[in-house]
Amino acid sequence: MINQDSIVALATPSGAGAIAIIRISGSEAIAIGNSVFKSIKNKDLTKQKTHTLHLGHIVDDAKTLDEVLVSVFKGPNSYTGEDTIEISCHGSTYIQQQIIQLLLRKGCRMADAGEFTLRAFLNGKLDLSQAEAVADLISSDNEASHQIAMQQMRGGFSNEIAKLREELLNFASLIELELDFAEEDVEFADRTQFHELLNRIEFVLKRLIDSFAVGNVIKNGIPVAIVGEPNVGKSTLLNALLNEERAIVSDIAGTTRDTIEDELVIGGIGFRFIDTAGIRETKDVVESIGIKKTFEKIEQAQVVLYLVDSYELSVVSLEALKIEIEKVKNQFPLKPLLIVINKMDLLSEEKINLIETQLTTHNTQLQFISAKENIGVEELKNQLLSFVNTGALRNNETIVTNTRHYDSLLKALDEITKVKFGLETNLSSDLMALDIREALYHFGMITGQVTNDELLGNIFANFCIGK
Amino acid sequence: MINQDSIVALATPSGAGAIAIIRISGSEAIAIGNSVFKSIKNKDLTKQKTHTLHLGHIVDDAKTLDEVLVSVFKGPNSYTGEDTIEISCHGSTYIQQQIIQLLLRKGCRMADAGEFTLRAFLNGKLDLSQAEAVADLISSDNEASHQIAMQQMRGGFSNEIAKLREELLNFASLIELELDFAEEDVEFADRTQFHELLNRIEFVLKRLIDSFAVGNVIKNGIPVAIVGEPNVGKSTLLNALLNEERAIVSDIAGTTRDTIEDELVIGGIGFRFIDTAGIRETKDVVESIGIKKTFEKIEQAQVVLYLVDSYELSVVSLEALKIEIEKVKNQFPLKPLLIVINKMDLLSEEKINLIETQLTTHNTQLQFISAKENIGVEELKNQLLSFVNTGALRNNETIVTNTRHYDSLLKALDEITKVKFGLETNLSSDLMALDIREALYHFGMITGQVTNDELLGNIFANFCIGK
Repeated sequence: MINQDSIVALATPSGAGAIAIIRISGSEAIAIGNSVFKSIKNKDLTKQKTHTLHLGHIVDDAKTLDEVLVSVFKGPNSYTGEDTIEISCHGSTYIQQQIIQLLLRKGCRMADAGEFTLRAFLNGKLDLSQAEAVADLISSDNEASHQIAMQQMRGGFSNEIAKLREELLNFASLIELELDFAEEDVEFADRTQFHELLNRIEFVLKRLIDSFAVGNVIKNGIPVAIVGEPNVGKSTLLNALLNEERAIVSDIAGTTRDTIEDELVIGGIGFRFIDTAGIRETKDVVESIGIKKTFEKIEQAQVVLYLVDSYELSVVSLEALKIEIEKVKNQFPLKPLLIVINKMDLLSEEKINLIETQLTTHNTQLQFISAKENIGVEELKNQLLSFVNTGALRNNETIVTNTRHYDSLLKALDEITKVKFGLETNLSSDLMALDIREALYHFGMITGQVTNDELLGNIFANFCIGK
Repeated sequence: MINQDSIVALATPSGAGAIAIIRISGSEAIAIGNSVFKSIKNKDLTKQKTHTLHLGHIVDDAKTLDEVLVSVFKGPNSYTGEDTIEISCHGSTYIQQQIIQLLLRKGCRMADAGEFTLRAFLNGKLDLSQAEAVADLISSDNEASHQIAMQQMRGGFSNEIAKLREELLNFASLIELELDFAEEDVEFADRTQFHELLNRIEFVLKRLIDSFAVGNVIKNGIPVAIVGEPNVGKSTLLNALLNEERAIVSDIAGTTRDTIEDELVIGGIGFRFIDTAGIRETKDVVESIGIKKTFEKIEQAQVVLYLVDSYELSVVSLEALKIEIEKVKNQFPLKPLLIVINKMDLLSEEKINLIETQLTTHNTQLQFISAKENIGVEELKNQLLSFVNTGALRNNETIVTNTRHYDSLLKALDEITKVKFGLETNLSSDLMALDIREALYHFGMITGQVTNDELLGNIFANFCIGK
């Protein structure tokens, strides 16, 4: 039995705006809403059909708090599965507070973070991984993470897991049935078919586990270290990369430049740029510390972007640059490295050819650009994108982004491996049955068929209030 | 003919939250909404009844952007009076952007600030002063300003003005009719009745004009200068005043302490506390500048709160304090002054009596408190409130808070005075008719019966986008 007390929360972002939405869910939601609502047409909210909208005022005894629109949703046809109303009021913080306080006095309780979605889960409106996708969806800030969350919310991931679990459960029953006939030494479960299923499960689990690396990158963005001496044009480069995107972002008020400058979405993938000092050799102790820090930052990055001012090349010899690049490559032999030569508009074609020949021999990706003239910027973006394995994303494959899922998948794989080994070594059915049950448990943890309060508490605590 | 192109904007505050609302209004609003919406029940939005809600997905060709709820409102039964849809989507900034951009591609135009309310006004859904009240309502942050905005939005102010305008218009017509019969020297307009009406209008106008002082105070909060040497406990005092209110405010995320510390709502009225240095006489040049600044700040305040640490009274003699208080009173004889003696818990009853006798003779309001022990704080609040003339507010009288209205009222009063003078001096009907028309014009400016593009532009530019 689910606790159906009526919960209330602000569902829209806090702060002032044109409108705000206050959401109430629970067995008494509509009655409570009705007790503070005076319809302009004298409607009784409790008698309205689901999915209807009603204009009127929120009144606190004689005092009118606001003119509002109230949406009525009747369970189970609501987000939570319970009776729900949404009050669309004027977006002043004062009004929001007054209405919420009134509803609290009328018997609502302040909703915990994620409690609306928790109820949706408990009422079977969505499974656990779908519920988690709701939080991911809200925090998604680029196309790739949005797409993955959408796919997960629509059940792509759970369906795959649930299907395998179903098949495994089938075999588990058959094997457990064998235990009842242990004396007779029968085999209900076809061992060959079972082995085949285990292989299939193993294959899927491994693919999902592998996808976590990509998923993680997509969810959190790809850290890119920009290496370069001060004044080689790092911020000009960022601005050039930002150019098109920024126009779009600034359409929406409240997106500040600060955030954009570090994080940048290219082709739907988030990139986080980490500024570093250069790595030029020096006798100065302080600067030596700087070089050490640069290396530490490169360590955290997945891609290194080495930015050179073409003017530098006339002062510093190409040889010196080669040595510096070599240093980075020696330190991080596996990290993709891209040399970006800025201000190419100031270089003669001869010089460009020379640089190209000299540096390309070092087996290094090279990109000439002019951030100022917007030359080569598009190519640079494509090169950054090429470092990301977006194959899975393009093919619409399921990608795991959630650490909890990843963890359960690893554990499930572990158990499946044990079961497979048991099968191959003719382990007794009763022992094998235990391993299968363990595997099933971990599958169930992902979709929420197996769950406990602590787990649910952890998951929904990360939600925002009002969802 | 009103331009009915379809406008779109985010109606909820920017930033991430559980849900966000995107609003479209215009002749094509529902069709455009329908073109990007895939109902889970295959509903056609254009065929739905007004005030209904529909679950489905926003799709951009093959790509699903979000699972959403769409509200359908058919004109004239909508806020703007036009066909309107509201898309309730997941509150990620990314999703908001994607959906708005999709709608822009599908033929919507980004709404200007206040354009939804402008359309509501142009479609006769509300008059101009009601439209202005919408903006006031959204920015209201205390009970008093909220109450005034609510009253104005419900037409309290406009009704009063419109009724007077109606009566005046009546007389204007009669007087203008006399002009047609100028040769015959007839009087259609009863001069005695007219004089009576003018007196009535004058009375109402004066009352409304007077209410602006209160209205302004309520809308913008009452500036209170706190005078006191450093360390007499100014922030402790503010905290003590804040005590109860803060618990309420902090229920809603995003209300930061910074705002609260300067501005504080007591009994529904906003108070703005202005910190000042003390005014203790000194030979130090720098400190003398400080005293000058303190006086400048007191100048801006409507109430002066002189805070004394009771410990001070043992060090500084009462006589010195009296002189300082006298200085403030001489400088600002009309400004309400309240002496607050903090840390009364450290004073003997004898000492309290002494101070009371000594300072009360100076015809000064005195309040002993212990901010730390929360003694006398409630009384202090009541004293602050007593400085505000909330009579009009309590009696639910119309209060003018809008500078534009105030301006029009002053001009209308000016014209009415002229008309009255004309009537008393037997001015010719044609000249009097001109003055009456002028007065009518200013009345009309308030409710929007008279208007022009520039005026509308100015008013609605102050609205937030999405309203």
